Amino acid sequence: MPPARQESVVNTAAALLIGNELLSGKVREANLFELAHTLRALGVQLVRVVMIPDDVEAIAAEVALLSRQYDVVFTSGGVGPTHDDVTIEAVARAFGVATHVDPSVAKLLSDAYGEACSEAHLRMALVPDGACLTTDDEVPWPTVVMRNVWMLPGVPEVFRMKLGVIRSTLRGPAPFLSRAVFTRLDEADLKPLLDQVVAAYADVEVGSYPKWFDPSYKTKVTFDARKPERLESAVSAFMELIPREAVIRVE
Amino acid sequence: MPPARQESVVNTAAALLIGNELLSGKVREANLFELAHTLRALGVQLVRVVMIPDDVEAIAAEVALLSRQYDVVFTSGGVGPTHDDVTIEAVARAFGVATHVDPSVAKLLSDAYGEACSEAHLRMALVPDGACLTTDDEVPWPTVVMRNVWMLPGVPEVFRMKLGVIRSTLRGPAPFLSRAVFTRLDEADLKPLLDQVVAAYADVEVGSYPKWFDPSYKTKVTFDARKPERLESAVSAFMELIPREAVIRVE
Repeated sequence: MPPARQESVVNTAAALLIGNELLSGKVREANLFELAHTLRALGVQLVRVVMIPDDVEAIAAEVALLSRQYDVVFTSGGVGPTHDDVTIEAVARAFGVATHVDPSVAKLLSDAYGEACSEAHLRMALVPDGACLTTDDEVPWPTVVMRNVWMLPGVPEVFRMKLGVIRSTLRGPAPFLSRAVFTRLDEADLKPLLDQVVAAYADVEVGSYPKWFDPSYKTKVTFDARKPERLESAVSAFMELIPREAVIRVE
Repeated sequence: MPPARQESVVNTAAALLIGNELLSGKVREANLFELAHTLRALGVQLVRVVMIPDDVEAIAAEVALLSRQYDVVFTSGGVGPTHDDVTIEAVARAFGVATHVDPSVAKLLSDAYGEACSEAHLRMALVPDGACLTTDDEVPWPTVVMRNVWMLPGVPEVFRMKLGVIRSTLRGPAPFLSRAVFTRLDEADLKPLLDQVVAAYADVEVGSYPKWFDPSYKTKVTFDARKPERLESAVSAFMELIPREAVIRVE
C-alpha cells in the first residue's frame, strides 16, 4: 500500500487554484467550495487559498511556499496534455526533482486510447519523481500526491470524483462542531453581545453574517469549536445575553 | 473631485477575499467571478487572488504585499461592525496609518439609523487615515479606497453595487480581445497544433478547455490578445493547421 493511502492526521490545508480562465472571468471557479466542505467535515482547517495563472515558475514558487507552511496542499487545474498544463512540472520543480512517465498510468492511457495513444496522451502519465499514486475503490484513475501536495484536476466533474480519496486518506485531529443562531437583530446591535462571548471564549470561533436580502432573519451568528462542552457553553452564554424575542431559531 | 474618481490606467490587479466562512465551506464565494469579469472588460489583468481568514495581522501582511506588487488591489469582506470585521483596521496597518470616523459616512449612518445609531454602527464609518471615498451616481454609499486598495463588502448583493464605481474609475491600457474555436478533437490531438501556434505567437494567450460532459464539443480553444491583428493572425494560423471537419464553430 503506498504511503498516501495510510490515513494521515493533518491540521492545516491550503489550496492552489490554477488557470488563466479563472482569473480572466471566462470560467467561474467551481472546485473550492466542494474542497472546503470536504475538509471541514474531516476536521481539517483550510487556512489559505491562492489562485494564479498557468505559469510554471509561479506555480512552482507557490507550491514550494505552501507545502512548507501547511500540512497538506491541494492543487486544482493544469494536469491535462497541452502547453498550458504545467502543474506536474511545476510541483516537480518545487521539490527539486524531475518527472517521469508512470508505467501504470501509461497503461491506463494506452488501454483507453488504443492506437491513437500519442506522446501527447502520455503527458497525462507524467508524475514528479518520488510521487505516490493513490486510488480508491470507486475511481481507478489514480491521484498523484507528491509529499504533501495533492494534484487534482480542474474539470469540476472530475475534481469531485477525487474527493472520495481525500475522505478516505486524510482526517483532522478532531471534528469541528458548529451551532448557528438566527436572529432578528442587525450586526451593530449584536456587536456588544458578541464581544462579551468572544472575550470569554477565545477557543470558540464566533461569526456573524447579515442577510441583507432575506426577510426570514437579519443576522446569523455562528459558533465553531472542536470541544463540544466549550461550544455549548459559548452558545448558552450568548443565549443569556440576547433578548428572547430576538431569536428566531437555533441550529 | 477626490483622486480615486479620476480615471486611472492600471495594468495588473489582485483580489483578497476575506472570511472564515469562505474557508470553512459554510458560504460559497460569489464575488470573484463578477470582479474578474468586470476587470477583464476594462482591460485590466487580474493576476492573483488570495483567500484568508478574518485575522487582522494576516490581512495587513497580505495587503502590504499585494499593494506593492500589483497596480490595484480589491478586498472583499470584513467591513461590517462586528469583532470579525477587521479589514479597515488591517488596511490601515498595512500602510502604517491610524483609522478615524469619516464624518460624511457617520452622517449617512445616523440619518439611516436615527436614535438607534450606536458606537457599533459608527464602526462602519471607520476609514484609514488618508483614504479616499468614491461614489457614483447610482450608489450614494461611498467605497473606501486607500492608495491602490479598494475595500469592497463581502455580501454579494452589495459587492455587485460597487462594480459600477470600478467601471467608471479604472481602465486597462487596452481592451483584451478574445476568439474561441470549438472543436471535435480531444486535447491530446490538439497539442501538436497548439504548440506550433504558441511558439509563433508569444503575445497571444492560447488556452484549451476540454468539455468532458458536454456532447456539443470536445475542446474549446481560446485566443486572447490586446492587438487585433495578432489575434486574427494566430486564429488563422490555427485554422490552417486543424482539419476543417474538426471545427464546430468559431466565436
